Amino acid sequence: MKAVDARGFFSSANALEFEDYLLLDYVFECQGDPELAAAHLCSEQSTAQWKRVNVSEDYRPRFAAKVLSLDTQACPSGFSSPVVELGDGEVYRCKVRIAHPHANFGPRLPNLLSAVLGEGAFFAPGIPLIKLLDIQFPDSFLSAFQGPRFGIQGLRERLQVENRPIFFGVIKPNIGLPPEPFAELGYQAWTGGLDIAKDDEMLADVQWSPLAERARLLGAARMRAEQETGVPKIYLANITDELDRLIDLHDTAVAAGAGAVMLNAWPMGLSAARMLSAYTKVPMVAHFPVIAGMSRLPFFGVHTRVMTKLQRLAGFDVIIMPGFGARMMTPAAEVQACIDACLDPTFGNIKPSLPVPGGSDSAATLEAVYNLVGSADFGFVPGRGVFSHPQGPAAGARSLHQAWAAISAGVPMAEAAKDRPELKAALETFG
Amino acid sequence: MKAVDARGFFSSANALEFEDYLLLDYVFECQGDPELAAAHLCSEQSTAQWKRVNVSEDYRPRFAAKVLSLDTQACPSGFSSPVVELGDGEVYRCKVRIAHPHANFGPRLPNLLSAVLGEGAFFAPGIPLIKLLDIQFPDSFLSAFQGPRFGIQGLRERLQVENRPIFFGVIKPNIGLPPEPFAELGYQAWTGGLDIAKDDEMLADVQWSPLAERARLLGAARMRAEQETGVPKIYLANITDELDRLIDLHDTAVAAGAGAVMLNAWPMGLSAARMLSAYTKVPMVAHFPVIAGMSRLPFFGVHTRVMTKLQRLAGFDVIIMPGFGARMMTPAAEVQACIDACLDPTFGNIKPSLPVPGGSDSAATLEAVYNLVGSADFGFVPGRGVFSHPQGPAAGARSLHQAWAAISAGVPMAEAAKDRPELKAALETFG
Repeated sequence: MKAVDARGFFSSANALEFEDYLLLDYVFECQGDPELAAAHLCSEQSTAQWKRVNVSEDYRPRFAAKVLSLDTQACPSGFSSPVVELGDGEVYRCKVRIAHPHANFGPRLPNLLSAVLGEGAFFAPGIPLIKLLDIQFPDSFLSAFQGPRFGIQGLRERLQVENRPIFFGVIKPNIGLPPEPFAELGYQAWTGGLDIAKDDEMLADVQWSPLAERARLLGAARMRAEQETGVPKIYLANITDELDRLIDLHDTAVAAGAGAVMLNAWPMGLSAARMLSAYTKVPMVAHFPVIAGMSRLPFFGVHTRVMTKLQRLAGFDVIIMPGFGARMMTPAAEVQACIDACLDPTFGNIKPSLPVPGGSDSAATLEAVYNLVGSADFGFVPGRGVFSHPQGPAAGARSLHQAWAAISAGVPMAEAAKDRPELKAALETFG
Repeated sequence: MKAVDARGFFSSANALEFEDYLLLDYVFECQGDPELAAAHLCSEQSTAQWKRVNVSEDYRPRFAAKVLSLDTQACPSGFSSPVVELGDGEVYRCKVRIAHPHANFGPRLPNLLSAVLGEGAFFAPGIPLIKLLDIQFPDSFLSAFQGPRFGIQGLRERLQVENRPIFFGVIKPNIGLPPEPFAELGYQAWTGGLDIAKDDEMLADVQWSPLAERARLLGAARMRAEQETGVPKIYLANITDELDRLIDLHDTAVAAGAGAVMLNAWPMGLSAARMLSAYTKVPMVAHFPVIAGMSRLPFFGVHTRVMTKLQRLAGFDVIIMPGFGARMMTPAAEVQACIDACLDPTFGNIKPSLPVPGGSDSAATLEAVYNLVGSADFGFVPGRGVFSHPQGPAAGARSLHQAWAAISAGVPMAEAAKDRPELKAALETFG
C-alpha cells in the first residue's frame, strides 16, 4: 500500500459518528513501519480493494475500518513469540484503536468474528502477532441482541438465593461413572446445601451415561432434595453435542428435570447459543473449553474479556471462566476483566451474566475469591471441594455454607472451623 | 498427583485395542517433571477423578487417556512464549503421544474439541504451553461421519473440469460494492474462463448487498455466462450468518442460482457445517477466519492439519486455507500437511476435500503453487489476480488458463507471455 493510500485508513475520532462503529483495541507486533502495518490491518478487515479498476470511486469513507490512535514502542529483542521469518527491519509493539463500521456485516456473531478475528487481523502484512484486547459496542449494535433471558436476578429468583454466591458443584467422578451413582452424588450434595449440581463439560450423551437416563435420575433426585430441604435446586445438564441433536437433547433434559442447560460455548459456536437462548425456558450456562488456546498469550489471539462479552451477547445467563489462583494460569487482572464484562451495567439493555470464576475451589478458597470479586454476585464451582470432601458430598456442600457464614460474620475461617467439622475437614484437605 | 497414581495414565501401545482410541500428538512445554505433567494432561482430559471417596473402584483402565510415548528435551532458555509465573524448576519441551478412548464422548465434533482442546489440554498442571499437532482417527470413529457429499470428483463433474486446478476468484471489491456491479464483475470473470466466482468471506447478508438480491443477480449472470461459454459455472455464496438464518439463507441463495455455499467454518462452528452438509444439495466450501489465532505459533494452540481433518470430517467439499508464500505467514510444510489432510486416501470411507491454498495469487504464482502441491487436485483462488487485472476480470481469468497451458506444455512462463497479452499483463502487474 502506498503512503497516500494508507491515509484513507486513518481518521480523527471526532470525524466519526460513534453509533456506526465498533471500537476495537488490538496490540500487535510488527516488523517495519507501524503506521503502514496499522493501515493494512484496517484495510484487510474492511475494504481491502476500495475501488474497481478504471472506475473513479472510493468505498473507504463509509466502509473502511479506521485507525483512531496508535501507540508504538520499539522491541529491540524482537518478537515475543517465535514467528516465521519476515525479513529485516525493526520490530515494534503497538497498541491501536480502530473504528470498524458495523454495517459492513451487521449484528451477527459469526460475521463479527470473521471481521475482527479473520484474515484482516491475522494476515495483515507485517503483523505476525496480534491480539484483540477489547471491543466496545455502541447501543445501535447491542440493541439487536436479546442477551441473557434470566441474568443474575432471574437465576437468584429461581433458586431463592439472595446476598450470597450461588454454590455450584461439578459432580465427580464423571467420566465413567454410571447415571445411578452419579445421581446419588448430586442428591447428597443438594441435601448438604448445594444450589446447582452440574455435569462436567466433558460429560456428553454417551452410551455408558445416556443423557435421557441421567437427566431422569437427576431430576428425581433433585425433587427429593427439594422436598427434604424446602428450597429449590437445579440440575445443570451439559447438552453440548452435534447441533442437529441440540434441541432434542435440550427438551429431553428439561422435561426430565434439568433446571438449566450448559453449552461448551466455543466448540458449539456462539451462534448456537444465541439460537438456543431464544428457544429455551431455562437458564443457559457457558463453559470455556478451547478458548484458552487463543487467549492465554499476552500478545497473540484474543483477550478473554472479548470472549466474555460475546458470550453475554449470545445470551448466556451464567459464564464459567478460568478463575483466580495459580492452577488456572490466568492473571488475576484478566479474571477481573471478565467478571467486569459480565456485570458491566453500561452494556445496552442487556442483562448481566453471572460470572463463575472456577478452578480447584473449595471452602478453603471461598473467602479469597469473594474478596477478589468484591461482591456476592458470582457463582462458586468446586468439584473435588464438594465431591471429594472426606465426609462426603453433603459435608462438602455444608462446608461452603459454613465458610460463607464465617465470611459474613467477619469470623476468621480457622476460628469458625473449630466447632464445624465439615469446614474443618475442608480446610485440612483442600487448604 | 502421586507418582503411583500417575502410572495409571501410562500404557504400552500393544496393551490397547486401537479401534477404541484416538491417537493424539501434542507438543508441550512444562516446568517440573515431564512424566508427571504428561500424566496430568491425560488425567485432566479424561478421568480426573477415577474413583468415588471410600469406594474401591478405578475408571482408568477403560476411561483414562494414556501416554504411549514421551520425548523430552531440556529448554535452558525457558518457555518459547511469555507465560504466567509458575515458580522455579527446569523447563522442558516434550512430544507426547496419547491414546484417548473415544467412547468417552462419541463421534461428536463439539465434544471431541472439548476433550482434546479443553481444560484437559490448556489447564493441565505444569503445562502453560501446549499445541495439538495431530489426531489419528480409527475407522470405528470415522465411520460415524458422512464427510464431503461431493468431494473433488463431484465438484469436477459439476464443472466439467478435469486435469487442471479449479479456478476460483474472489470478486473484488466486495465490502461496499452494490449487487449490480458485483454481479457484472462475476460475469466478466466467468466469460474469461473462471470456474467459480465467490463472495469474500467477510461479505454477509447486509443492507447494502442483501444476499437474496446478490444471489439473484449472480445466478442470472452465471446462466448468461454458461450460455455464452458452453461450460458450467458456479456462484459461491457466503451464507455465514447467525445459525437460525442459515437454512433460509442457504435455500434463498441456492434457489437464486448459487451452485455452492461457503461457511466460515470456525466462526459458525464445525457442527453447523456437519448439519448443513447433511441438508444441502450443493458443494460446501470452508473458509478459515479465526483459525490462525490458535494455530500460528509453533508451540501453542492447534495445528492447522487438525483443523483441516475436522473440516473434512464435518463434510466440507472444499477447504480454503492459508497458502504458500510470505504473505500468508504459514510455513510451506504446514500448508503441505493441510493439503495432505484433504487428500489422504486412508481416512476411512470419507471422500477427499479439494484443498485451496490461497493468498495473493495470480497467473504469476500458479506454477509455483502447482509445483508445491504436486498435482492438479487443488483450487486456485486469486482475488486481485483476476479482479484487479489491468485489462479487467475476463482478462484476469484468461491469464490463469494461459498460465496453465504454459505449465502443461512445459513452456517457460515468460516465453508463453510473449504473444498472450493477458498473461503478459498479469506477470507484469502481479509478478
